[in-house]
Parts: sequence; C-alpha cells; structure tokens
Amino acid sequence: MNRNTSTSFRARVARAALLGIAALALGIAPRARAAEVLPGWNDGPAKARIVQFVESVTDPSSREFVPPAERIAVFDNDGTLWSEQPMYFQLAFILDRVKALAPQHPEWKTTEPFKSVLGGDMAAVAASGERGLLQLMAATHAGMTSEEFSEIVAGWLATARHPRFGKRYDELTYAPMRELLGYLRAKGFKTYIVSGGGVEFMRVFAERVYGVPPEQVIGSSIETKYEVRDGKPLIVRLPEVDFIDDKAGKPVGINRHIGRRPILAFGNSDGDFEMLEYTTSAPGPRLGLIVHHDDATREYAYDRESHIGRLDRGLDEAAKRGWVVVSMKSDWGRIYGP
Amino acid sequence: MNRNTSTSFRARVARAALLGIAALALGIAPRARAAEVLPGWNDGPAKARIVQFVESVTDPSSREFVPPAERIAVFDNDGTLWSEQPMYFQLAFILDRVKALAPQHPEWKTTEPFKSVLGGDMAAVAASGERGLLQLMAATHAGMTSEEFSEIVAGWLATARHPRFGKRYDELTYAPMRELLGYLRAKGFKTYIVSGGGVEFMRVFAERVYGVPPEQVIGSSIETKYEVRDGKPLIVRLPEVDFIDDKAGKPVGINRHIGRRPILAFGNSDGDFEMLEYTTSAPGPRLGLIVHHDDATREYAYDRESHIGRLDRGLDEAAKRGWVVVSMKSDWGRIYGP
Repeated sequence: MNRNTSTSFRARVARAALLGIAALALGIAPRARAAEVLPGWNDGPAKARIVQFVESVTDPSSREFVPPAERIAVFDNDGTLWSEQPMYFQLAFILDRVKALAPQHPEWKTTEPFKSVLGGDMAAVAASGERGLLQLMAATHAGMTSEEFSEIVAGWLATARHPRFGKRYDELTYAPMRELLGYLRAKGFKTYIVSGGGVEFMRVFAERVYGVPPEQVIGSSIETKYEVRDGKPLIVRLPEVDFIDDKAGKPVGINRHIGRRPILAFGNSDGDFEMLEYTTSAPGPRLGLIVHHDDATREYAYDRESHIGRLDRGLDEAAKRGWVVVSMKSDWGRIYGP
Repeated sequence: MNRNTSTSFRARVARAALLGIAALALGIAPRARAAEVLPGWNDGPAKARIVQFVESVTDPSSREFVPPAERIAVFDNDGTLWSEQPMYFQLAFILDRVKALAPQHPEWKTTEPFKSVLGGDMAAVAASGERGLLQLMAATHAGMTSEEFSEIVAGWLATARHPRFGKRYDELTYAPMRELLGYLRAKGFKTYIVSGGGVEFMRVFAERVYGVPPEQVIGSSIETKYEVRDGKPLIVRLPEVDFIDDKAGKPVGINRHIGRRPILAFGNSDGDFEMLEYTTSAPGPRLGLIVHHDDATREYAYDRESHIGRLDRGLDEAAKRGWVVVSMKSDWGRIYGP
C-alpha cells in the first residue's frame, strides 16, 4: 500500500470513527441495532428481554458472557414452534394413516380403536386411552424401516391439509419463532428441539422448516433394531415404546442427548415445566420462556382448561421463577408465513 | 486503489501465478500439501486412502463431494481412540471404586462379586459373568447425580495410573487418532464417539482430550430420572441398564442420536462390525477403517484370540468390504504423547 492509499484509508477510518461517536452520543446506534433484530416481534417486554439476554451472554466483555459451546437453546415443538390445535399434528397423521391402511386391514372395521377412527368418532378414540393410542402408534409407526417411515411422513406432509387454515401442516410453523431460531444460531447458539412428538416424525421436516438438523432433534421414540436384508443394513421400527420425551422426561432426554444444561428453554404447556425448571434453576444467566396462546382470531386461545397444551402451573409460577410469558396476540407480528 | 498500487498488485499476482505453475509442473505443490497433512501418520496406503477420501468429499468440483452437514464421522473409543489393555479403562475405574467404597460396605467382604474384586481375584470376577458386572455397575455407577458421577470420574482420572505405562489413563489416547479427529473437523466433519463405554463416563474427558463435545458422545447408558431436591433440579442415575451401545446396538444408537448415516466409521474390534457395515453399505463415498493392534513393543498385539477387543470377522471381511486395516506398527508414528 503506498502513501496516497494509506492516507485516504486513514481519513476514512477517522470519519467513520467520528460518525460512530456521534451516533453513540445521540443514542442512534443501539436503537438502529434493536430495529434490525427480530423484526417479526412487536416491541415490548418479551422481545426486549430476549434481545438483552442474547446480547449479554454473547458480549465477551459482559459478566454474563457464555462461551459458544455452552450456548444451548431448547425448544418444545407442538404449540411452541408450530400449532397443535385442533389436535397434535402427529395425531392427524395417525388418523390419516389408519384410513389409508384400512383396506389392508378388514378386521379394523370391527376392532377398537380402529373402528372409531374409521367412523370419525373422536370421543371414542379418546376413550380408548393410552392403550388405544399405543395400538394406533404400533399400526402406523412401526413395522417399517426408518427410511420408509420418513418417506411416508414426507408424503403425508405434502398432501394433508389443516382443517381450519387449509394449509400444509408444515406451513403452520410460527414465523416469529423461526426468526428467533435463526437469530440465536447467528449468535452462536446451538438450537435443539425437545418435544413429546416422535423423533423420526419431526426429523422429516425440522431441518427444512426450522434449520434444526436431525442430530439436534430430541423426541419420543419407539424401539428399533438393526437388520441386514439382502446385504442392505436397515433400521427397523418396532411396536414398543422406548422413551417418552415429555414432562420430567424432557430433562432426562436433554441430559441423555446433549449432556449439558441448556441456558435457554422455550415451551408452551405444563409438559414443558420441568424443562424450563431444569434450564433456569442453576447458576449463571438463564432464560425461560412460554408461548401463551391468547389469539383466537389469528390462531387459538387456550391455557388452563385445555386438554391439548394445557398451561396452568406454568402461568401460576412464571412470575416467581422469572420466566417470560410471551403473548401471541401482542408480542408477535405475523403468526405464519414465509 | 490508485494506479501504482494496482500495478504492483497485478505484478505480484502474475509472479505468484508463474511460481504456482512452475510448482505444479515440478509436482511440488501436491507433495508439499501431503506433507502438511497428518504428520503423525507414516506414508503408506492407509494414510493415502484417508487423505484421498477427505479431499474428494470436500472438493466442491468432485463427483464425490458431500455437503458439510452430511460429513458425519463416527469413532469407537476403547482400542480405537485410547488403549483398552490389560482391561477396559472403565473396568479399572469400577475396580478402584469398589476398593474406595469398601469401608462403607463391610458386607462386600463376604459377598460376590465384591469379595473377589477386593481380593484381586480377577478370574473369579470374570466368572461372575454379566450378573456380576451389573452388580458392580450398580454399586459404582448409580445412586448419585450425573454431576456427582462426573466429579468422581474426574477425580479418578486425575489419580489413577495405568499398570504398564504408569501414566494417567487419559494420557493413553492415540496421538495419530487425535490428529485425525482434528483434521476431519478442519475439513467440516462432525466427529462423534460411538462406544460401548458409558456415555457419562466418556463425556468427562472427551471434549478435553479429543475435542468431542458431550452432545457428540454416544455410549451405553443406565436409566436416569429427574428429581428436584430442595428446589434444585437434578438428574439421578439409577441401577438399571438403559442401552448397550455395542455390536448391532451401534447403528441403533447412531440412528437414535444422529438420525443420519455417517460417511466414515473407525473401529478396532468385531464390536464395531455393524457400525462399519451400516456406514459403508450405502450409495455415495464411504470409508470404513479398523485399527489393527499389531505393536506389542509400543502398545499391545492382539486380534482373533483376544477376550478384549477381539477382531476376527473384521479381519476376514475387510478386503472384501473395502475397509482399510490400519497397522499401528507401520502406519502410526508416535502412539501416545501430546
């Protein structure tokens, strides 16, 4: 670099520095920065708390600084990253699969809980309880290889439509949450899904719609076995429950898969209570958040009395525990959309 | 940039290009590059195959190119990343723990398999079989929290010494393998440990000695439960086996944790056979490797007849399956060391 270039470079640096100082003095820079972050979230205490937390744990000069390797953020899926009404989307998959498989199973016409599924009697399906649900799971989730199951789920996602919104189920993910996942990753966080949903069900779409790779999806699982057929190694899905990743199972699943405690947890129901408790009850900076479904116009409104995604203890204890209750109605701009 | 700078810049580019062409013509560049890679490996077919594989899957212009997200490499631990003789190091931990805990368990003096452990009668310990081993596991690995267990293991690693080499067990990791892990990561691979060893045992040292973070350690596990004591959430270790990550369990563990098939697998015994088979029996570029312990002078020599780390079927089928058998004696420079 010769003298001319060097001089003009120095002059430019000096000018930029002066502008920077002026902006700081006027308070322009912080405001400008805040406006760029999470544009899909409305200004308010929830957004402010998230941004303040992320900035403090990523600022090397902050007392709250957390090294990148420990920036683990965990998210529930149903009701937190996508909708869960009028029924868990995976249950819609199960019901559709039973109908699709019925021609191969004439005995289902007279056997519960299949008979009620085929007759559309959801009250009777619910009445079949855990035993009924396990039978439906076994019939629709087991007996094939993992790869075959992925293809079945992908095919269902491509064709099934939500009864109220008329959209593909994977179009009903929450835009502000996808934005938050991206923001956290840009800030060096590793984002995980920790859900009661089936792990191999969620892995089919988690990377595409959330940017969460398969190895960062933790969920409920059935037993599998390794088998070689005609020289081709396969993972075969078996009709036995392996692990239920819900309630107190969530911290267990986190410890099993990740092996360290997250610093941020986001849920929406009492099924996430233990995950938030585990995440936030330890020294150091920690953040717990709950999506509150209070927007019947744009999505759904439900909490203490709901059968799906019931949120009762979480609402009672959020203030005491310092958890942020996020109002879908007032904290979020658009709910869905690209 | 003014004309003077631009001209001198162009001149430098031209000179560099000429030098580059000359180096290529003389064959200097490839040789220079090869010399920089894996200096702890002796030149030979094993090293050449590894480097060729890694270069082809990371070269965007290659037909073999694999996107970074799919560059999953899995490594056995015992006998592949560190030594496993004269007994699995985790078994040495168990025996030491029984001795340390014996004063609190006077009944062990007369109860098998504890009596034989305390008396140093390893033949009798072995004769107690799987039931005996499970009793020893329960006594030494369960009943405490995950955090407490980590501290116990860390304390043991800091004080225990290998009977032959007189070194800390975590100093007996293989230098060429640590180098390979780093080389793969520098090339965009995600490196995993997939071992029959206990997952919470290995996580204590895996990040420090191998650069493998806890979430990339897959191993055998016992059941755990979530518990809140005095407001403090804990993971408590229970005396029941959850999962054995060995033989056909390895592909199952890989599918469960990672959810996609690795493209590189490195093992040393027939316990790794299914992992290598699963990794290499699919379309696309794939590499299976086996450490052959043939160096009694610097480490140990054992294969078909060994009780620990028996390698029989792997040796028989390696050539047919295209797996690389790595000779510790001739392919590795230094075995241990920083």
